[in-house]
Amino acid sequence: MLRRIISLLLLLGACQAVHYTPDWESLDSRPLPAWYDESKVGIFIHWGVFSVPSYGSEWFWYNWKTQQLPALSFFMQENYRPNFTYADFAPQFTAEFYDPNKWADIFNASGANYIVLVTKHHEGFTNWPSKYSFNWNAMDVGPNRDLVGDLATAIRKKTKLHFGVYHSLFEWYHPLFLQDQANGFKTQDFVKSKTMPELYELVTQYKPDIVWSDGDWMASDDYFMSKNFLAWLYNESPVKDTVVVNDRWGNNTRCKHGGFWNCEDHFDPGTLLPHKWENCMTVDKYSWGFRRNTKLQDIHTMDELIEQLARTVSCGGNLLVNVGPTKYGEIAPIYEERLRQMGQWLAMNGEAIYGTKPWTFQNDTTTAGVWYTAKKSAEGNVVYAILLQWPEGNVLKLGAPQPSTETKVTLIGYKGTPFTFQKGSGGGMVINIPTITFDQMPGQWGWVLKLEGLSNQATVAPRVQDLLQKMNG
Amino acid sequence: MLRRIISLLLLLGACQAVHYTPDWESLDSRPLPAWYDESKVGIFIHWGVFSVPSYGSEWFWYNWKTQQLPALSFFMQENYRPNFTYADFAPQFTAEFYDPNKWADIFNASGANYIVLVTKHHEGFTNWPSKYSFNWNAMDVGPNRDLVGDLATAIRKKTKLHFGVYHSLFEWYHPLFLQDQANGFKTQDFVKSKTMPELYELVTQYKPDIVWSDGDWMASDDYFMSKNFLAWLYNESPVKDTVVVNDRWGNNTRCKHGGFWNCEDHFDPGTLLPHKWENCMTVDKYSWGFRRNTKLQDIHTMDELIEQLARTVSCGGNLLVNVGPTKYGEIAPIYEERLRQMGQWLAMNGEAIYGTKPWTFQNDTTTAGVWYTAKKSAEGNVVYAILLQWPEGNVLKLGAPQPSTETKVTLIGYKGTPFTFQKGSGGGMVINIPTITFDQMPGQWGWVLKLEGLSNQATVAPRVQDLLQKMNG
Amino acid sequence: MLRRIISLLLLLGACQAVHYTPDWESLDSRPLPAWYDESKVGIFIHWGVFSVPSYGSEWFWYNWKTQQLPALSFFMQENYRPNFTYADFAPQFTAEFYDPNKWADIFNASGANYIVLVTKHHEGFTNWPSKYSFNWNAMDVGPNRDLVGDLATAIRKKTKLHFGVYHSLFEWYHPLFLQDQANGFKTQDFVKSKTMPELYELVTQYKPDIVWSDGDWMASDDYFMSKNFLAWLYNESPVKDTVVVNDRWGNNTRCKHGGFWNCEDHFDPGTLLPHKWENCMTVDKYSWGFRRNTKLQDIHTMDELIEQLARTVSCGGNLLVNVGPTKYGEIAPIYEERLRQMGQWLAMNGEAIYGTKPWTFQNDTTTAGVWYTAKKSAEGNVVYAILLQWPEGNVLKLGAPQPSTETKVTLIGYKGTPFTFQKGSGGGMVINIPTITFDQMPGQWGWVLKLEGLSNQATVAPRVQDLLQKMNG
Amino acid sequence: MLRRIISLLLLLGACQAVHYTPDWESLDSRPLPAWYDESKVGIFIHWGVFSVPSYGSEWFWYNWKTQQLPALSFFMQENYRPNFTYADFAPQFTAEFYDPNKWADIFNASGANYIVLVTKHHEGFTNWPSKYSFNWNAMDVGPNRDLVGDLATAIRKKTKLHFGVYHSLFEWYHPLFLQDQANGFKTQDFVKSKTMPELYELVTQYKPDIVWSDGDWMASDDYFMSKNFLAWLYNESPVKDTVVVNDRWGNNTRCKHGGFWNCEDHFDPGTLLPHKWENCMTVDKYSWGFRRNTKLQDIHTMDELIEQLARTVSCGGNLLVNVGPTKYGEIAPIYEERLRQMGQWLAMNGEAIYGTKPWTFQNDTTTAGVWYTAKKSAEGNVVYAILLQWPEGNVLKLGAPQPSTETKVTLIGYKGTPFTFQKGSGGGMVINIPTITFDQMPGQWGWVLKLEGLSNQATVAPRVQDLLQKMNG
Repeated sequence: MLRRIISLLLLLGACQAVHYTPDWESLDSRPLPAWYDESKVGIFIHWGVFSVPSYGSEWFWYNWKTQQLPALSFFMQENYRPNFTYADFAPQFTAEFYDPNKWADIFNASGANYIVLVTKHHEGFTNWPSKYSFNWNAMDVGPNRDLVGDLATAIRKKTKLHFGVYHSLFEWYHPLFLQDQANGFKTQDFVKSKTMPELYELVTQYKPDIVWSDGDWMASDDYFMSKNFLAWLYNESPVKDTVVVNDRWGNNTRCKHGGFWNCEDHFDPGTLLPHKWENCMTVDKYSWGFRRNTKLQDIHTMDELIEQLARTVSCGGNLLVNVGPTKYGEIAPIYEERLRQMGQWLAMNGEAIYGTKPWTFQNDTTTAGVWYTAKKSAEGNVVYAILLQWPEGNVLKLGAPQPSTETKVTLIGYKGTPFTFQKGSGGGMVINIPTITFDQMPGQWGWVLKLEGLSNQATVAPRVQDLLQKMNG
Repeated sequence: MLRRIISLLLLLGACQAVHYTPDWESLDSRPLPAWYDESKVGIFIHWGVFSVPSYGSEWFWYNWKTQQLPALSFFMQENYRPNFTYADFAPQFTAEFYDPNKWADIFNASGANYIVLVTKHHEGFTNWPSKYSFNWNAMDVGPNRDLVGDLATAIRKKTKLHFGVYHSLFEWYHPLFLQDQANGFKTQDFVKSKTMPELYELVTQYKPDIVWSDGDWMASDDYFMSKNFLAWLYNESPVKDTVVVNDRWGNNTRCKHGGFWNCEDHFDPGTLLPHKWENCMTVDKYSWGFRRNTKLQDIHTMDELIEQLARTVSCGGNLLVNVGPTKYGEIAPIYEERLRQMGQWLAMNGEAIYGTKPWTFQNDTTTAGVWYTAKKSAEGNVVYAILLQWPEGNVLKLGAPQPSTETKVTLIGYKGTPFTFQKGSGGGMVINIPTITFDQMPGQWGWVLKLEGLSNQATVAPRVQDLLQKMNG
Repeated sequence: MLRRIISLLLLLGACQAVHYTPDWESLDSRPLPAWYDESKVGIFIHWGVFSVPSYGSEWFWYNWKTQQLPALSFFMQENYRPNFTYADFAPQFTAEFYDPNKWADIFNASGANYIVLVTKHHEGFTNWPSKYSFNWNAMDVGPNRDLVGDLATAIRKKTKLHFGVYHSLFEWYHPLFLQDQANGFKTQDFVKSKTMPELYELVTQYKPDIVWSDGDWMASDDYFMSKNFLAWLYNESPVKDTVVVNDRWGNNTRCKHGGFWNCEDHFDPGTLLPHKWENCMTVDKYSWGFRRNTKLQDIHTMDELIEQLARTVSCGGNLLVNVGPTKYGEIAPIYEERLRQMGQWLAMNGEAIYGTKPWTFQNDTTTAGVWYTAKKSAEGNVVYAILLQWPEGNVLKLGAPQPSTETKVTLIGYKGTPFTFQKGSGGGMVINIPTITFDQMPGQWGWVLKLEGLSNQATVAPRVQDLLQKMNG
Repeated sequence: MLRRIISLLLLLGACQAVHYTPDWESLDSRPLPAWYDESKVGIFIHWGVFSVPSYGSEWFWYNWKTQQLPALSFFMQENYRPNFTYADFAPQFTAEFYDPNKWADIFNASGANYIVLVTKHHEGFTNWPSKYSFNWNAMDVGPNRDLVGDLATAIRKKTKLHFGVYHSLFEWYHPLFLQDQANGFKTQDFVKSKTMPELYELVTQYKPDIVWSDGDWMASDDYFMSKNFLAWLYNESPVKDTVVVNDRWGNNTRCKHGGFWNCEDHFDPGTLLPHKWENCMTVDKYSWGFRRNTKLQDIHTMDELIEQLARTVSCGGNLLVNVGPTKYGEIAPIYEERLRQMGQWLAMNGEAIYGTKPWTFQNDTTTAGVWYTAKKSAEGNVVYAILLQWPEGNVLKLGAPQPSTETKVTLIGYKGTPFTFQKGSGGGMVINIPTITFDQMPGQWGWVLKLEGLSNQATVAPRVQDLLQKMNG
């Protein structure tokens, strides 16, 4: 009932009047600001003291000290004095080549519409000069610079991308967290003196459009005081009208509460979800942070990336593609290449991605490797079929789309005439692929057929419409 | 009236029953545990991240960043990259040669009866693994070791010295302190989340016999919540019966409240004070922390040190002699030499120092460079005259002591017969210095005449007795 | 006349009897061992202390100190103390991830048949433990490892690639070189005590199949004593039968004397040369050594690399493709990707490259972007046309090949039938390109038409045959 | 016979005409320039890359790698990565506080008349920018400064001290030395390309008054070509008239050939030698180089130093007192103190040291701890008795000096009248020590009685005169 009213108020443009209370029913009732779903693609950036050893992964500290992985023990033994500590790495986080404008150019060229920068990972090191992390932040040690602020400024000056921040609620080795934990989380010294003050500071100072929370699994939302934070974020913060958040606010919230859902890392359900979600994934298959010894085979190919993009968007998700910069502040060319190539693909095929909605079908019922998106237009829904492989032979059988006499099939980026087709014997349609010479082919890695005037474009209504409505609140 | 009762209770051995309230009247009424006044000599140890640049002084950070002393700017410019931060020094605080047992031996050999170790200076770096100083403490960065705990253990295992801790209430650059300051000290975020928790932790964990507070001048005792801490320290802490504190608890307390008085650094009034006090001074004239470029002329001679000792003890003070260890954990031989030579002097002349009380006169009225102490004995007070120069010629005229027929004059450490003397023409006495061959001379730097059976030994009563009473209560 | 005799002797298998004298007439008369021309593709590896700053280029030291490039001055000023020297970089050349087997796999996968490793660049640092470079070699400082020996072993164990060494005759700042230079090169202290001893040592120890000399422009071959070295190399060294050398042996030898000709870096004449030559070029357009701040646009695309390969081999050259490993011993993924993709192309199209000879025509006279190679077979010469762009439309007009009735045209990697064609109106031939669907296309970046039974296959004889004869001595 | 002639020529002031040949008979015939014997006291300075680990001793490299002392293995294991090499230490030899003028002041204040600076120890690192030690010298790595030249300039500008250089003929790990050694020293690659060129360079460039050779024990003087060097040094070098050398020129020369004799380190025969010699010894008993962990008990007391001085000079030697500066360029205060105190002693008692000759007796025949020196004066020889302990009681019995009626006994530095004495019952004399009050005592650590007009002052003639003559050539 409350949500019904809220929705009504929203439609009346009266959103200013809504006041959220610190409980999930109220918080979950807030509609996700539209820009987020329309954006579809974001860039995730993992950068921190872990970029100094730059080995194993961004979980270096934990895997070395708590997991005691042999590879990491060996790495430390071979390369450092025995008493070398993790904090001893920090002065080597030099960031001397860090040029936020250059980063902004790359992210912009990737076709992404937002970025999410790690501002503090589980190591606790804040990439901005937090008042609550004395001598364990990027101004006091290492870069001697506000890494967060400088990127926020560059992104806003040079691009139209939305600026988001990743923030870990917990820290592996913060003594106050460990103490709260030892107390069965009945005390909240860590939350009150560290993680919450810095989160408010972060929002107030950098006005992010996304607060991407993590470290949620260690304790409840009550312990972390997340609901209070969100109520403040939605009611009073300087970004209350535009901000989106994810779902990692306590060990009881994933895939359940918050803004969009991240659920697990690399979350890729392959089916339509009844809520807006995001697939955060990495270009380096095995690490979010930069690894100095990443091999080529560890890095996703463009085929894999475009497949992820198509699957994710078809199923109602956004894709958040992660890259890890080096300790000296560069995005390595292999990542720049992947990002720019994704941008090339999107420059041609973006209309099948940006601003689309899931269709009745997510992937084709007859031919594998075909993913659908849909978009409202004046004349009715347009349906996009994203082909991950170029059809062998000269016919493509699709089971999901039902053609009408109005149906028109075009290949995006192809200058030739629309493709002819027949009704399939058991429904669907059989599209005649003309012989396109290599020089006329529109790009690689994936191709988009634009299907207009389908007889079942309307079927978007019953099932998906409902989901879409849920998804947005 | 309250104090009268307290004193009474104390005399009755009922000190357990006293409960102090967090106000100065009550706190100041606590009698100073006797061991402190009897000890007379302590060793002060300044060690921290400032021991890494080891240049200028332990105020390196402040003098570089805030004072912008040209010498320090030049030093940084010549030896470090421009973005090098103070916290970047910490991993080089390696302490690889730190052997607390070796330190304990040296301190023990110095004749001192207590030590005061800097556990946290104004830089905020805690030499113990404090829960309130994540990644800015000696376990998390640099030594990877509990410097405080290891020394406490060694001191207790190898010596009978009392273990004390220096702790700075404020920190130059802690952002919460700076914020409280900007708020006119109406907020106490720093005190509540940092300085007080760590001070309680320090006491609870290491059970020091001295809490030597500093950094008091920046704000009031109310801001720092010092009185509450002291009430807890006196009433409930594990060291409530033995602990002594100094007077630096807020910008309104020096030379006024607390336990013994430090007043200023290098405090050396030259007259008897109506309160127990301490002269903290440095062997390196210009720095408390180790300076790599200290020259010999910067270092106090033994003559100067023994003079300080005599002046200080004669006037009712304790002497706290400071040395600064190197970043690799050694007490440089020049300091070891001074400490061991002080110990040699005290091994011979200690009876004129340890356990003494000030006499009626502090220094002689006729001959300069003669300082007195006194001590109760079964036969009446013994008076000690400490001669800083060996008398020229064969007579020593002293104005203060009045001889009686019982008077006996001996030179400590000299195997010959007692010295003869005459009454001085205008009072006092003229002592005949025998011709002592060089090989019979008892040491150097200072000599002690023991004066027994003076006619004015009794005069200790009226004036000094009163002072002494005040001093201890 | 001498050469005539030598050739004769060689044909008689009497090569053991040849003795070379230290003059160019004799040295140049040595036939180039056949493996080198057949190999066509090599990998060049620039690694050294310059990989530590990893900025600017491998000429860092010279450009900083002698050229005083502002960018390098600024780099040093921002990142190092003023007195930091170039030699101070060496301990940071850690090579901790250096895995020669991994390198061997990558080089092998690239399709190359030989490698040339920088063993000592102009900085003078030897990547092997030379007796003539005490404490300025990879065993004594930095890696603490024989970088050269370990790669030689891995290459020989894991691949069939030939192992070659780059060696600079001169060193920018070796004081003995500077002294010889100041003496107008009338003294040879540097040559006699440094560069020649180490070159003999290098050959004796690692038995390279290539001695790739550099630093030649600074002085004459007489000064460098190069001819004596080559006479020894050809007559007595352990590699006398297999070794090849280049042409950089003094400021009077480039493009004139020695083994194959390198002439200039990035040498790419675009026409057939009357001598075997090599195009050494870099994947990073602006540096031979690894640069930490290389941008994607600085890196050659695969299209550019395949074009280089086709142009070079068509004109009688070998292609030496350079990559610069990081100071920690990794070949960055972007370079691994280029190398592996080159390997993929060669796996399919290698028959048009390996073991080929230049044809009468190097590139087509009618259609741009078509390069020819030729190969003897039992039935007569086969001619390969390498197309750098896929022909637009369905016809490809070629001016150079003259068809006969026996002529057969096939596309390498394509499973369909041979292509039909007509004689061109003004000579040459017009090839009908069938419509090949995208999934049937043989790769990308370049395609090879195999032309068998041409009527002008014989024309290879008169002009080229003569050149080829010259090329091989 | 040759020597007889040479001596004759010398007496005739014809020394310019002498030409030395590279054989010991000729070289040994060169008279030692008089300044050296008159100087008596010098300062030895051990500084180099070994000052970086500053642990164990200046033999760190050898004791770690070849001797494999457990303490050093442990030190490396605890403080460095496993592959850390000795040469990796060099960039940390920063010398940032090195102020040669300050050093000159200290050396001058010590009473020494010459210094001997280590310019290259067995590690091979040259403290000057040698042309023969590329990138293993103080200009190319570490200090980035000519340490030798800067001290030479300061010493000459600010003092009258003679400037000398220590130089090691051999180097532990120079590969050419090791190769020569493996060849049974039949090759001389090391000598010809390294050690001799740099020694000539050193002399030509810095014009030292002393060439203090070391590393002699590894091979013969023939291998090292020492005799040729000395002939050049004596005949042609810019310092041919003033230079002195020691005796370490091959494994067959110690205590036998060359200039003054060093024989062993810490050489202290206790008897008069028939040749000028030098006792080189260290203030730190266990190391020539600075050790960061030297304890006070490792450091010689002033009593020990003055004893060494007296013994050495009495027996015809010079005393060369060693100190090791820190890697950052400071002479630690403990060493500055010892040097300045030696200077204080010499300022008072120097007439018994400087310019003296050994007397008939070196030490007294009756009383231990009394050492004699003698000096020619207009009225006959003056004899000095240096007392290391102050006589107990009021008499001092001396067996060696025979009084005459002219004899006068005074205590240097004492303002009282000459001491009375009697003839001893069995010869010698009994001196009456007056009662000197402490304030009149002339210093400490040693006292000098000046004995004029002895009846056996003449006895210097027969035995010693002869020795002295031999000593000086």
